Amino acid sequence: MAEVEYSKGLEGVVAGESVICQIDGQNGKLFYRGYNIDDLVKKSTYEETVYLLLFEQLPTAAELAEFTGNFRSGRHIVTPIQDMIRNFPPGGDPMELLQSVMSYLSGYVEHKIKHSATCNCRQTLHQVAQLATVIAAYQRFKEGKPYVVPRQDLSHGANFLYMLRGEEPLPYEAAIMDKCLVLHAEHGFNTSTFTARVVASSLSTCYSSISAAIGALRGPLHGGANEQVMDMLKEIGAVDNVDSWLDKTLAEKKKIMGMGHREYKVKDPRSYVMEGFLRELSEKKGDSRYLSILTKLEKSFRSRMDEKGKPLYPNVDYFSGSVYALLGIPQYLFSPIFALARCAGWLAHILEQRKDNRLFRPECLYTGPQPREYTALEKR
Amino acid sequence: MAEVEYSKGLEGVVAGESVICQIDGQNGKLFYRGYNIDDLVKKSTYEETVYLLLFEQLPTAAELAEFTGNFRSGRHIVTPIQDMIRNFPPGGDPMELLQSVMSYLSGYVEHKIKHSATCNCRQTLHQVAQLATVIAAYQRFKEGKPYVVPRQDLSHGANFLYMLRGEEPLPYEAAIMDKCLVLHAEHGFNTSTFTARVVASSLSTCYSSISAAIGALRGPLHGGANEQVMDMLKEIGAVDNVDSWLDKTLAEKKKIMGMGHREYKVKDPRSYVMEGFLRELSEKKGDSRYLSILTKLEKSFRSRMDEKGKPLYPNVDYFSGSVYALLGIPQYLFSPIFALARCAGWLAHILEQRKDNRLFRPECLYTGPQPREYTALEKR
Repeated sequence: MAEVEYSKGLEGVVAGESVICQIDGQNGKLFYRGYNIDDLVKKSTYEETVYLLLFEQLPTAAELAEFTGNFRSGRHIVTPIQDMIRNFPPGGDPMELLQSVMSYLSGYVEHKIKHSATCNCRQTLHQVAQLATVIAAYQRFKEGKPYVVPRQDLSHGANFLYMLRGEEPLPYEAAIMDKCLVLHAEHGFNTSTFTARVVASSLSTCYSSISAAIGALRGPLHGGANEQVMDMLKEIGAVDNVDSWLDKTLAEKKKIMGMGHREYKVKDPRSYVMEGFLRELSEKKGDSRYLSILTKLEKSFRSRMDEKGKPLYPNVDYFSGSVYALLGIPQYLFSPIFALARCAGWLAHILEQRKDNRLFRPECLYTGPQPREYTALEKR
Repeated sequence: MAEVEYSKGLEGVVAGESVICQIDGQNGKLFYRGYNIDDLVKKSTYEETVYLLLFEQLPTAAELAEFTGNFRSGRHIVTPIQDMIRNFPPGGDPMELLQSVMSYLSGYVEHKIKHSATCNCRQTLHQVAQLATVIAAYQRFKEGKPYVVPRQDLSHGANFLYMLRGEEPLPYEAAIMDKCLVLHAEHGFNTSTFTARVVASSLSTCYSSISAAIGALRGPLHGGANEQVMDMLKEIGAVDNVDSWLDKTLAEKKKIMGMGHREYKVKDPRSYVMEGFLRELSEKKGDSRYLSILTKLEKSFRSRMDEKGKPLYPNVDYFSGSVYALLGIPQYLFSPIFALARCAGWLAHILEQRKDNRLFRPECLYTGPQPREYTALEKR
C-alpha cells in the first residue's frame, strides 16, 4: 500500500501549542492555566473557572460579578428552541440534539462581522449558559413536564439540577454538581477539542465549532465511558459478585470500563475528587450500592494487575456515572453533561486558535485506482 | 516559546490515506476513484457519481435504478424540520441552519447499533438527498412561499431548481445544475473533509460527522470563495472598468478572488468546465455581463502575472458564482450548494475512515504558565 510513513490518528504528532491546560501524567496532576484542579474544585466555582479559561486569569470580585450577571441572564432558551427540543424524535440521541441546537443558536446572535471570527462570545456566553437549559428541557419534555425557567440566583450546577427537577437541590448536591462541571471543564487536546480547533481554523463561528465538537464527543470512542461503567455496574449487580465477574471478564480478555487513561501513568487526579463526591453522596443518601462495588472492584482489579506488572488505575469516568446517578440524573444525560462542562474548554481553545490561526489542512496519501476509462451504462 | 518543531495547521503532514480522489496538480487533472472528472461531467449524473463515491465503482443499470429510487424517495423533509427552517432567525447564516438540521435529522433514522458507526447511510442517503430540500425550503420560506414537495421523476439538479422555483427548470439549466454538483462532489482532504473524518473517528454517526463538516465549510477561509468573486464582480461593475480596477487592486496588494489553488500548479480542471457552463448560460440567456468581465479580468491578470513570472490561474470558484447567478440562485446559497454537492464526498470519506479506523488525537505542546497558587477572591 503506502510507501510513505505516517501516524494513524495523528498519534504522537504535535498539532499545535496551547497555554490553557497542563496535564502532568507522570505525577497525576492537572492544571487549568497553571491552577491545580484540586484547588479549583475546593475553592472555585464553575462560573469562575469558565472566566479563568476564557479570560486567562482569575477574575476580581467586580469582574466575577459582571461576568456572572451576563452568564446567568443568558440562560433562558426561546420558544423555537424549546420546540426543537420537544419535537426531537424520542429515539434520537440527545447528543445530536445538542449538536443541532448549538449551531441553530448562532442565528440569534449578531456576529460582529459577517462570516467572521469576531463574535462576542466571551460576553454573551450563550453557548455555555444555554447548553444546561437545553439538556434540562430535553429531560423535562421527555417526562411530559413543562419547561423550567432558569434562575439567576443559583450557581450553574445548582440551577442545572433545579431546572431538571423543578425544585431546588440540597446545598451539598448543588455544590457537587457545580464541582463536577469544574472537573470536566477542560482537558487539553482530545478529539472533540481538536475538532473545535479545526472548525474554528476556517474562521467559522464559535457556535459552529462547538457544535462540531459535540459531534466528536458523541462517538463511543471519545464520550460515553461513564455510561459504560454504569452498564458494567448493572451487570455485576452486587458487591458479592465482583470477584467472580472480574475473573470471568478477564478470562474473556474483556476490558474493565473506567480503568486506565492515555495521559496518566498514575491515578487520574480527577478520579480522587470524584471518588470523594461519591463517598459523600453515598453517605448522605444512605445508598452505597455503587460505591461498594466500585471500591471492591478497584481493589480486586488492582491486585490482579499488580501481579501482572500492569499498573492500571481508575480514571474520572470510573466514579462520575455513579455520582450523577445518585444525583438522580438518568444515564443518557451523562454525555450531554460532559459536553455542558467541556463547552468552556472548547470555547477557550477556539479563542486561542483564532489568536494565531492557520487553517488545518493536512495531506492525504492517495492509494486508489489509477486513471481508468469511463464505461457507458449499457456496457457495464 | 516552543522548543519542539511542528507544522502549523498540519501543513504538509500526512493525516491518512484514501482511495477516493486523486488530484494531479502538475497536469491539472482530477479523478474520482480513477475516473476523470471531465468524463463524469460529460457522461455521468450526480446520482451516479454519488453511487461511484459511496460504492467504489460505477453501478450497473439495475444498481443505479435501485439506488436512484431510494435516493429520490428520501428527499422529502418532515414538518418539524420544515418548522426549524421556517423559524430560523432571518439574520442567521444558512450554513449554520444546514449544520443544525443535519444532526437533527439523525433522530429520524434507526441506527443499526446504538452509539455505533454501522448506520445504514448508504441505503437511506437522507444526508445527501434531504440537504437539497432543506436549502430549497429555506429559500422558499424566505420569500414567503410554500414548501415545494420534491419530485421523484427529476434528477438531483433538476429537482433542486424545481423546488427552489416552484416550476420545472429548462432542460439545459437542469443539466448544468446537476453537472455543477458532480464537479463539486469530492476533492480529497481539505478542512471540511478532514473534520468529517476526525468526528467519524470517534465512531459518531454520519449525520453528526457531516454536520461538523458543514461547520468547517462555513468559515470564510474554506467556503465562500465564489461569493467573494461575486462581490468583486459587483465592485468592478462593467467590463470597461476591469483594467483600472485591476491596477488599483494590485497596487494596493489586494488579492484577486478566484485565482490560484493550493493543489493545482496549472489551471484548475474544474474551472474549464465551469467556464463552459458560463458561456452556455450567457449565450442562451443573452446575458454576458459576468462572462465579459471575468474573461477580460483573467486575460489582464494573467498577462500582468506572466510578466512577473507568477503563474496564477482561475480556480473553480472564479466561474461558479456567475453560473449560479444566471440560474437565478441568490448569492447566500452558494456555500449551501457547495455543501449539498460535497456531502457525497464527505460520506465517502466517513465510510472509508470507519473501514480502518484510529481515533484522531494529536498531541498538544503546552507553553502556558507553570503551576501557581490559587489566590482567594478577596485578595485579588
